[in-house]
Amino acid sequence: MAVEKVEASLMDRESQAINRLLDWLRIPSISTDPEYKAEVRAAAEWCAAQLREAGLTTDLHETGSPDQPGHPVVWAHTDGPAGYAGPHVLFYGHYDVQPPDPLDLWESPPFEPVIKPADPGAQGEVPGERIVARGAVDDKGQVSMFLEALRAWHDETGSIPIKLSVLIEGEEESGSANLEKYLQDNKAALEKADICVISDTGMLSRTTPAITYGVRGLEYTEITLHSADQDLHSGLWGGRVPNPINELAKTLAKLWDDNGRVTIPGFYDDVLDIAPEEQQSWKQFEQGQVAALKKIGLDDSANRGESGFNAVEREWARPTCDVNGIWGGYTGAGAKTVIPAHATAKVSFRLVANQDPAKIAVLFKKWLDDNTPQGCRFEFTDFHGGWPGTVSTESPYLAAASRALASAAGTEPALIKSGGSIPVVGMLKKSLGLDTLLVGFGLDDDRMHSPNEKFELSCWRMGLRSHVRMIDEFAKMTV
Amino acid sequence: MAVEKVEASLMDRESQAINRLLDWLRIPSISTDPEYKAEVRAAAEWCAAQLREAGLTTDLHETGSPDQPGHPVVWAHTDGPAGYAGPHVLFYGHYDVQPPDPLDLWESPPFEPVIKPADPGAQGEVPGERIVARGAVDDKGQVSMFLEALRAWHDETGSIPIKLSVLIEGEEESGSANLEKYLQDNKAALEKADICVISDTGMLSRTTPAITYGVRGLEYTEITLHSADQDLHSGLWGGRVPNPINELAKTLAKLWDDNGRVTIPGFYDDVLDIAPEEQQSWKQFEQGQVAALKKIGLDDSANRGESGFNAVEREWARPTCDVNGIWGGYTGAGAKTVIPAHATAKVSFRLVANQDPAKIAVLFKKWLDDNTPQGCRFEFTDFHGGWPGTVSTESPYLAAASRALASAAGTEPALIKSGGSIPVVGMLKKSLGLDTLLVGFGLDDDRMHSPNEKFELSCWRMGLRSHVRMIDEFAKMTV
Repeated sequence: MAVEKVEASLMDRESQAINRLLDWLRIPSISTDPEYKAEVRAAAEWCAAQLREAGLTTDLHETGSPDQPGHPVVWAHTDGPAGYAGPHVLFYGHYDVQPPDPLDLWESPPFEPVIKPADPGAQGEVPGERIVARGAVDDKGQVSMFLEALRAWHDETGSIPIKLSVLIEGEEESGSANLEKYLQDNKAALEKADICVISDTGMLSRTTPAITYGVRGLEYTEITLHSADQDLHSGLWGGRVPNPINELAKTLAKLWDDNGRVTIPGFYDDVLDIAPEEQQSWKQFEQGQVAALKKIGLDDSANRGESGFNAVEREWARPTCDVNGIWGGYTGAGAKTVIPAHATAKVSFRLVANQDPAKIAVLFKKWLDDNTPQGCRFEFTDFHGGWPGTVSTESPYLAAASRALASAAGTEPALIKSGGSIPVVGMLKKSLGLDTLLVGFGLDDDRMHSPNEKFELSCWRMGLRSHVRMIDEFAKMTV
Repeated sequence: MAVEKVEASLMDRESQAINRLLDWLRIPSISTDPEYKAEVRAAAEWCAAQLREAGLTTDLHETGSPDQPGHPVVWAHTDGPAGYAGPHVLFYGHYDVQPPDPLDLWESPPFEPVIKPADPGAQGEVPGERIVARGAVDDKGQVSMFLEALRAWHDETGSIPIKLSVLIEGEEESGSANLEKYLQDNKAALEKADICVISDTGMLSRTTPAITYGVRGLEYTEITLHSADQDLHSGLWGGRVPNPINELAKTLAKLWDDNGRVTIPGFYDDVLDIAPEEQQSWKQFEQGQVAALKKIGLDDSANRGESGFNAVEREWARPTCDVNGIWGGYTGAGAKTVIPAHATAKVSFRLVANQDPAKIAVLFKKWLDDNTPQGCRFEFTDFHGGWPGTVSTESPYLAAASRALASAAGTEPALIKSGGSIPVVGMLKKSLGLDTLLVGFGLDDDRMHSPNEKFELSCWRMGLRSHVRMIDEFAKMTV
């Protein structure tokens, strides 16, 4: 069978494949820093060349405006074999990296990648090797698994066996400012895709791969409560007029009831229930909660949230409201007896399917109007956010990817969700109606965004085999 | 009668008296700025010379330690006439001033005092003149009324008719750091006083003088709520663990009940009721509330506080709890989805007789212990504060001062209290058991601490006559 031939070739070409990745890692494609504009483009061109060598029609698409040019999108496409009846797959990744600061904490220069043995004495370490460099796992190393899988298919069989579009952006680490417009401008090409695959997430453990089939959405706001038009002396005015800090605290406190539920009317209207099968399969992950709390300095007394749900359910399937910042009045050293004219809070909501961030903003705004303390007024700023993205556990693409990972890893992948938000997932869902499978091979301790970022070669190998197998599984499907 | 002779002499000597004050105002005695150390001492020496010329035994008392020398206290004393059986009066004032910044907003240089006509077109202005300079009203101008009264008594009668101690400090505008120790060190001399008089407050209006017979005390704290030992990602942890900002808001909100009363058990135990006569006499002041609110941009809907009390009662006779500052998490521009490790609030209490700031601190600390959110811990800092100070409305000294002001002004003085705290009043009460009468002649629009500080000469004249008469009234008393 073709897939076995392709897989068998991987070992023969491994050192060349790793050397290619090291070449890419040597290009400091720091998208947030204008000084590195040329290097960012060089990394895009390097990536485009790989895709061309794998036989895809490839181009760099410029982004932004003449006044504010963005970094290019690497775009590639193949229609697949003649008569192909399977799904059209979109692969998304990014070729830009985080700045390497603080430089003095790196054990080797961030853009001089090295292969190091895994620490033999470290607890829980499996012997092996790792690549240490900025971008090793986020995301060049993970994209390279996909690129090498394409190359192997192309070299061993002469073609890619699926209809595939590839979108590798260069602004993920600096906010993806031009991505939404890019998706809109290229809607015609993109909305024909059936499923998106992204390799930018993590495994359950070093030996168990994972598919993340849902992320939460986000609505982010800032609210300022005003009262008097000037700061007041708390001696002359304390107890006589509303103090915006007192009143803001009282208002915020009303956002949650005694069961930890958000009190905004309509907030839960669009929330989907957790399916009984999901609830059952998530039980295995609940065991890790005590250890997870310990890592952040907490004991089991901090294991709390919305009543009736455990920690995994709270993170993966329940919406939340959190105050991410608050300030008002005197915040320096010592004492100052001021009643400030205003006080501000950043209030965000993590959303789950099928909540709409714009609708949540409207509900919150109305709730503030209804709960404005007497003698005060609220100022409301909507920073927007993103849609949640969830793939049905019944999805045939999820099943196909699971089979591929099980075969590559020798063990069933964990089907997990994440409480975080990955903006591109929400954008693809909202702009194109496209579901995303997050199939990543990073580990918790890979030091993404930190000095000495690394990627274990054992994980890279598993990811490479998984991509080879996913392509095969998608090729076998009929849409 | 002697007092009439003394009073009659005031007009003859007025321009010399004003010129003396202008000389004092030319000395930039800015106590908070070490650059002006010599000028602060010069202002003390100027003041001491005046007291010596009025026949008092006068000295400069050094304060602070050899390592951290303070500004001197001007100390003066007279035993009064042989066989004097009246009260021993302590007069307190300060000779230091606030820095004059921002300089560019002054219409004339702050330390080049000028006499200007009152704005003829300004609404509510009474024709007359004013002195414009830093310190014009706070407090050199007010102390000069007392100094000139002494001088007049001395020059016209050959002596001061009462037993009098004088304490003019040079650190009031920089926190009175050495005053409490000074009071302790000089307890033997000071605790023999019967009543303290301070001229550093205001009149009810341009034509009605006021005696402030009570100020609120203060207890000031800072509380920090901790949860995890690090900042957390609100996607991965939101809804699963306590968010210190959410929890701090919920805890603070519990400090007040629906009637605006502080919920800390025991908080009201030592609060004295408002006497029915006070309640009756304060009704006249309640009329000014709407206008006062309008000045700070509020309408009557903001006229709220503890149920069952009006605004005057809330400010003068009821304790409060105010959050004077709050901060935690992300406070920059835009969105950051953090759950911070901690959040902090500055929480202060205005206290009324007979509340003890140290006892309130203990009660609040216990309340925090009892209300610590699960999975969190409070850190508590006590910045202390000061005792409230209230003179009984039955006090014979208050009656004597009232008679003096009524005679000097041709109208009964208003008996008022203040919601603010004057630290020296609390210190004198706590250290020496001494009550204080606040007999000041400033106006609301005198721009204390601001550019173009001024003192109306009509007020200065009324204050000077009032001091002459107060000395006479005290001299007529038998203790």
